[in-house]
Amino acid sequence: MHPAGIFPIGLVGCGTVGTGVVRILQDSADLLTAQTGCTITLPQVVVRDPTRPRDVDLSHSSVSTSLDAILADNSIRAVVHVVGGTAGPRNDIIRLLQSGKDVITANKALLCAHGDELFSLAQSLGRTISFEAAVAGGIPVISTVCTALTANRIVSIEAILNGTSNFILTRMLDRRQVYHDVLQEAQQLGYAEADPAMDVDGSDAAQKLAILTRLAFGTVVPFDRIARQGIQNIDLQDLLAAADLGYRIKLLAVARLNSARLELSVQPTLVRADRSIAMTSGAHNFLAIEGDAVGVLKLAGAGAGRMPTASAVVADLVDCITGRAACTFNALLRLQQRNPLPLHPTADIARRQYLRFNVADRPHVLADLAHVLGRHGISISSVRQDETEDSADGTGVARLVILTHRASEGRLQAADNEIDCLDSLRGPRIRMPIAD
Amino acid sequence: MHPAGIFPIGLVGCGTVGTGVVRILQDSADLLTAQTGCTITLPQVVVRDPTRPRDVDLSHSSVSTSLDAILADNSIRAVVHVVGGTAGPRNDIIRLLQSGKDVITANKALLCAHGDELFSLAQSLGRTISFEAAVAGGIPVISTVCTALTANRIVSIEAILNGTSNFILTRMLDRRQVYHDVLQEAQQLGYAEADPAMDVDGSDAAQKLAILTRLAFGTVVPFDRIARQGIQNIDLQDLLAAADLGYRIKLLAVARLNSARLELSVQPTLVRADRSIAMTSGAHNFLAIEGDAVGVLKLAGAGAGRMPTASAVVADLVDCITGRAACTFNALLRLQQRNPLPLHPTADIARRQYLRFNVADRPHVLADLAHVLGRHGISISSVRQDETEDSADGTGVARLVILTHRASEGRLQAADNEIDCLDSLRGPRIRMPIAD
Repeated sequence: MHPAGIFPIGLVGCGTVGTGVVRILQDSADLLTAQTGCTITLPQVVVRDPTRPRDVDLSHSSVSTSLDAILADNSIRAVVHVVGGTAGPRNDIIRLLQSGKDVITANKALLCAHGDELFSLAQSLGRTISFEAAVAGGIPVISTVCTALTANRIVSIEAILNGTSNFILTRMLDRRQVYHDVLQEAQQLGYAEADPAMDVDGSDAAQKLAILTRLAFGTVVPFDRIARQGIQNIDLQDLLAAADLGYRIKLLAVARLNSARLELSVQPTLVRADRSIAMTSGAHNFLAIEGDAVGVLKLAGAGAGRMPTASAVVADLVDCITGRAACTFNALLRLQQRNPLPLHPTADIARRQYLRFNVADRPHVLADLAHVLGRHGISISSVRQDETEDSADGTGVARLVILTHRASEGRLQAADNEIDCLDSLRGPRIRMPIAD
Repeated sequence: MHPAGIFPIGLVGCGTVGTGVVRILQDSADLLTAQTGCTITLPQVVVRDPTRPRDVDLSHSSVSTSLDAILADNSIRAVVHVVGGTAGPRNDIIRLLQSGKDVITANKALLCAHGDELFSLAQSLGRTISFEAAVAGGIPVISTVCTALTANRIVSIEAILNGTSNFILTRMLDRRQVYHDVLQEAQQLGYAEADPAMDVDGSDAAQKLAILTRLAFGTVVPFDRIARQGIQNIDLQDLLAAADLGYRIKLLAVARLNSARLELSVQPTLVRADRSIAMTSGAHNFLAIEGDAVGVLKLAGAGAGRMPTASAVVADLVDCITGRAACTFNALLRLQQRNPLPLHPTADIARRQYLRFNVADRPHVLADLAHVLGRHGISISSVRQDETEDSADGTGVARLVILTHRASEGRLQAADNEIDCLDSLRGPRIRMPIAD
């Protein structure tokens, strides 16, 4: 712990999260002093465009466009770095660590791309990197995995880690709206980026899952090796059909021990409507973490947004000041150095499935599909066909929903390949597992 | 952090939680070594009856009935003290701290009775007291409040903190069983103590709420000053009537900022059935903590039981070894020393209410009740009267459920006093607030 007095920090990036951090430092200064025993000051702020209006008061800070001002200030021992991208932040953080400063970041993409390098560098320099805000925003999941569950072997993590896609799926169902309208609304509300690809295709959730997997299972997996499927092809009718069957569709991120191997996936999944994970609505995140001693621990809250993310960043900052960050970072370094687990072959994972096809409304189509499934040993548990509106040229298109009994992903993929060759398909089809 | 090597600890008490701790130390030794960098050994165990059979192997420990063995062993720097009661544990912990040892306890009653004294002593001696397991078992709520939410002014805590009463309420409704049958079953399953009074009368939850209030609001309140009501008078018909209305009855512990004053209560409350808190079933605990930056953070999991509680105890132990416990304890000392808030006068709190009466089935009874409520300005929103079985002597007893609009606790208590004088009441009546 530092002696009572002044604790000057640096801030790199003053966008959504950065201004949130400044707001907390200013509005809750008394609270932070009560908890750390010192006054946190912000002598240096680095931004891309100093002329851009910001709704926080930076008149007590020197605002510049170069990291040099922070690097040159030896009184600054901790820096909040909240800038997107990977190459730039990597360079910044290397320089900050080398100049003897602890770093707090919320950048999951950076940790996925350069975590090993940055963690090793920090370790060799006796510095710390804190990143509670990088996964699930305001929910303290990094500290839960690294410190609260130390007595446990983690058995599984089942989570909703992307607020944007959860907002879209919830809103589509609640308001009977179509995907593109809701996506537009999410962008207007600031939930979705101008380019929402990483959110809706599962990449963002996979990055967060990769970070959790490093800590919970001691296994470093590049996020793009995690099997992932996005929500782009889910339509309103899928959500309604699932609801009719007593399910909600959620973009589920799963890491699970399975015969000493690690099962990892991010994909839209049908979850029973009465489970807490199914009831996670809007831009919220949810995690169910199972440990061998504690059982299932559930965490839910705001997974993104200015103030919730800033809440996690400032908690990390307080930990830097009190010395707790060093203990936690050392634990984290040890956690990620356990024996890495092999990945469970996706093909072996057997689950029930929801299949939906838009097909030409003519004889034999259902029989053809059923034959393909049957040939691959996939047993059908229920079928539902709804007439859709006739297409403009008068050719009918039928909507077919098939639920299967448990079938392995390998069989399903083989069937998928054959189904894709059927000439009766009209537009994208979708396949999603059903959680048991 | 201690250097790599041996970290010997002491254990006082080897009952349910104590044996769970031994089990984790033995079964997860590799995991704990990976995380702490050292081997935890258990040279000294103190128990009341060394001859009692225990399903853990203590052959590598010296088992005695006196604390002296631990006190005399200077290599022991941390002691897990898991014994019930207050006077004995207080004396033990004072002696342990004075002999230079950090203490980990799960004893909420002890902290309520002697927390100030023990915390001050530990502070003056440069030692730590850790107690994650004292509130909500395996759910890391102490660390969430003390470390993850440091950037937040806590606005409210709404929680289910007593697993026994939640088990009873859930089981009664699910299986249509009466209170005493379920209580007996809870005792057989080990959820409820032989004397379940503290669980079912709200005292246990009030003790836990008092500990949270100390940390979250910097205000020390004796637990017996918290307004509390137990679940003993809730009958199956109440649970069914609430379910019919779309509610679940939960023993809710609430701490809430209200105009810079603190509203504290533990009482059975009607909660909308679709809220996550209402869906907390069995012996589980739940907390919804609202912070001004993070919004509402929800935590749920096992609130009691051997392994979940041991999971929290061992996490505290690991924190002692890594040095994190000292940082956290210092933060905790600062947190509880903020300006205490005055309590909000209970009489001013206005809520909707569920009133149930068993009354003589004769004319004027409803009118009499309605008149009393009306005289105190309490407006009725709905009434439901069900015929109950005729009593043995042939006198009919009717069951009357009245829902009110918002009314202040002061008015309701005044009405209660008058209602108690009505000679038409038969047996206990109940009044519970409805959460909005």
